[in-house]
Amino acid sequence: MPQTAHVIGAGVIGLATAFELTERGVPGARVTILDPDPASGATHHAGGMLAPAAEVQYRQEPLFPLMLESAARYPSFVDRLHSATPLPTGHRTDGTLVVAGDRADAGHLEDLTRYQHTHGMAVERITVREARRMEPSLSPAIAGAVHIPGDHQVSPRLLVAALRDALTRRGVRFVADEVTNLVRDGAGAVTEVVGERTRHDATGAQVILANGLGAGRVGGWFDETNPLRLRPVYGDILRLGVPAALDPLVSKVIRGFVEDRPVYLIPRDDGTLTLGATSREDIQPKPRLGGVYDLIRDAVALAPGVEETTLLETTVGARPGTPDDLPYLGAVAENLVVSTGYFRHGILLAALGAEAGARLALGESPDVDLRACAPVRHSHL
Amino acid sequence: MPQTAHVIGAGVIGLATAFELTERGVPGARVTILDPDPASGATHHAGGMLAPAAEVQYRQEPLFPLMLESAARYPSFVDRLHSATPLPTGHRTDGTLVVAGDRADAGHLEDLTRYQHTHGMAVERITVREARRMEPSLSPAIAGAVHIPGDHQVSPRLLVAALRDALTRRGVRFVADEVTNLVRDGAGAVTEVVGERTRHDATGAQVILANGLGAGRVGGWFDETNPLRLRPVYGDILRLGVPAALDPLVSKVIRGFVEDRPVYLIPRDDGTLTLGATSREDIQPKPRLGGVYDLIRDAVALAPGVEETTLLETTVGARPGTPDDLPYLGAVAENLVVSTGYFRHGILLAALGAEAGARLALGESPDVDLRACAPVRHSHL
Repeated sequence: MPQTAHVIGAGVIGLATAFELTERGVPGARVTILDPDPASGATHHAGGMLAPAAEVQYRQEPLFPLMLESAARYPSFVDRLHSATPLPTGHRTDGTLVVAGDRADAGHLEDLTRYQHTHGMAVERITVREARRMEPSLSPAIAGAVHIPGDHQVSPRLLVAALRDALTRRGVRFVADEVTNLVRDGAGAVTEVVGERTRHDATGAQVILANGLGAGRVGGWFDETNPLRLRPVYGDILRLGVPAALDPLVSKVIRGFVEDRPVYLIPRDDGTLTLGATSREDIQPKPRLGGVYDLIRDAVALAPGVEETTLLETTVGARPGTPDDLPYLGAVAENLVVSTGYFRHGILLAALGAEAGARLALGESPDVDLRACAPVRHSHL
Repeated sequence: MPQTAHVIGAGVIGLATAFELTERGVPGARVTILDPDPASGATHHAGGMLAPAAEVQYRQEPLFPLMLESAARYPSFVDRLHSATPLPTGHRTDGTLVVAGDRADAGHLEDLTRYQHTHGMAVERITVREARRMEPSLSPAIAGAVHIPGDHQVSPRLLVAALRDALTRRGVRFVADEVTNLVRDGAGAVTEVVGERTRHDATGAQVILANGLGAGRVGGWFDETNPLRLRPVYGDILRLGVPAALDPLVSKVIRGFVEDRPVYLIPRDDGTLTLGATSREDIQPKPRLGGVYDLIRDAVALAPGVEETTLLETTVGARPGTPDDLPYLGAVAENLVVSTGYFRHGILLAALGAEAGARLALGESPDVDLRACAPVRHSHL
């Protein structure tokens, strides 16, 4: 029986979930995506690294298997998407170099490498000389380097443009509306999706709440307070233009620690570089000068030639953070799936989250263990 | 007899010159200003300091009297403009502090102060303690300070908006067109102004060539090669937002030298700060990351709180530089006045340049010595 679905949110998670629904036989014409401004949120500002190894942070063990699993699924996800649209995704598999700014950072990097190995990740310590042979733009002053061939990237803006195109080709309808409320019947099933402009009948439809931070503001689908504990974690990010004479300045993703501050440089197919990203919880939704300063200084320390690039854009995105840095992903009613709170890993986890979200919406069991991601786990906070 | 005038260029020089023409009795309805994109050039990106003393540079002696004279005329210029429009100009007379980043910069500052005194400028050496009493945001690490009460500021974008409003109220016509050529008769008088879209009869009209770098591309008004030796000197400049809790971060213009690099912070009435400006001749018309980096680093060295501001805008302007840093200002035919090449001093010199340009166009003698500014002086180069 053909299903009907209302996907709330047109960021990477909402779009990818809608895509997986159509991949699983739901006719595109029966899928509606509601978003007042598609692809404008965290996705628009994301770096797009598919970096389960390089992104490892201490005390996030429950995240690692999800990150690794999603990275493993990305090639198939991108391949299937490429079958549905001619648009590019910026998927690149040239790997990542992680470098240390000074000797203390090198110590940090060594500890991290050991930790990554413990968790079965393929990371390879190399000499600074080897790193500079791979990437001649790296400063001779860097104090250590690690090569992670399996950490890849997509270009988030291209990825969501490709998803939108694929969905449009499949007949999916986009409605520019901000969803404020869900209405349930006595049995707890969602019967209506209420936007600021329109109301949508949801009887018998599957509803997927995937609108990032906005999910914390949607009412009506819970008995008590909204159980999602989402907070904005701001990140300053720069887009740089590489002059023709220097292009490519770097050929793979360069991550680094400089005086313990993380920084990355992502080369894109269009000759631009993405330089990011700070992590701030100061409720300052505009680029903070001190953050921009840190990013530039640290990038210059790792690859001095970056001074010769042009500053094309300075933006800030708000990632939907959760108390334990794990997403909220699960079914919370017969026809309601929550899929948000992906924090710094929305792009990487999209392949896994979209597939799991689509399976849940179709009444199937997800093929990964999502118990740690239960959407109501923080309702007591 | 009422004159007719065609002013080519709607930057601060063209607009102010048109304003002075109307002040001198030329009916606004008989003045036409031609510019494809008014107020978008060097003016849009300028700092707006009225700083004859702080802007002093060695070996620019012929400029000093012009700068001092124009600064002296600014209060009257702004007063008269305020009589013609209700719009603000951001004119502020709170003075300037010049500070030194380190001890070598302090030596440089002392030499400069001596040089300024030699040229009769009112600059007052003060202690770092006194400077920090005036501006508590200044870093305790600064190594020297000078107070220049007479160096003031306008907000260039407000100033040109006010000029445009005043001119519109007086009936001046704005034509969005790029002037490419002037046509002369046998006697050398300009008879036609040729734009990409329209041609304007200039018989008996005064023509003022005031379109900045564009003046070097206008043909037809000289016998040999265009005599103007204009080159773009790019300047990266940032606009910052001061959070309410810190406003005002600084209360007067702060200029500084940090490792010999000049930097300034200009507080505006709207709670923003202008941070500028680099000086580059690398034909790179986009903000250069290394330049932005220098500006932020040096501003942070002088006033660390600037890290807490938000980055609202990063732009780059091209100042029309001349070989000797003096403007091209003079009559070159019976009805053609050239007024361009103001380099880094377009805003400051606008009061003087506009008055002199209007006088020249009206056949009067300018009341300043403009011999050093002859528009044809570099035709041999």
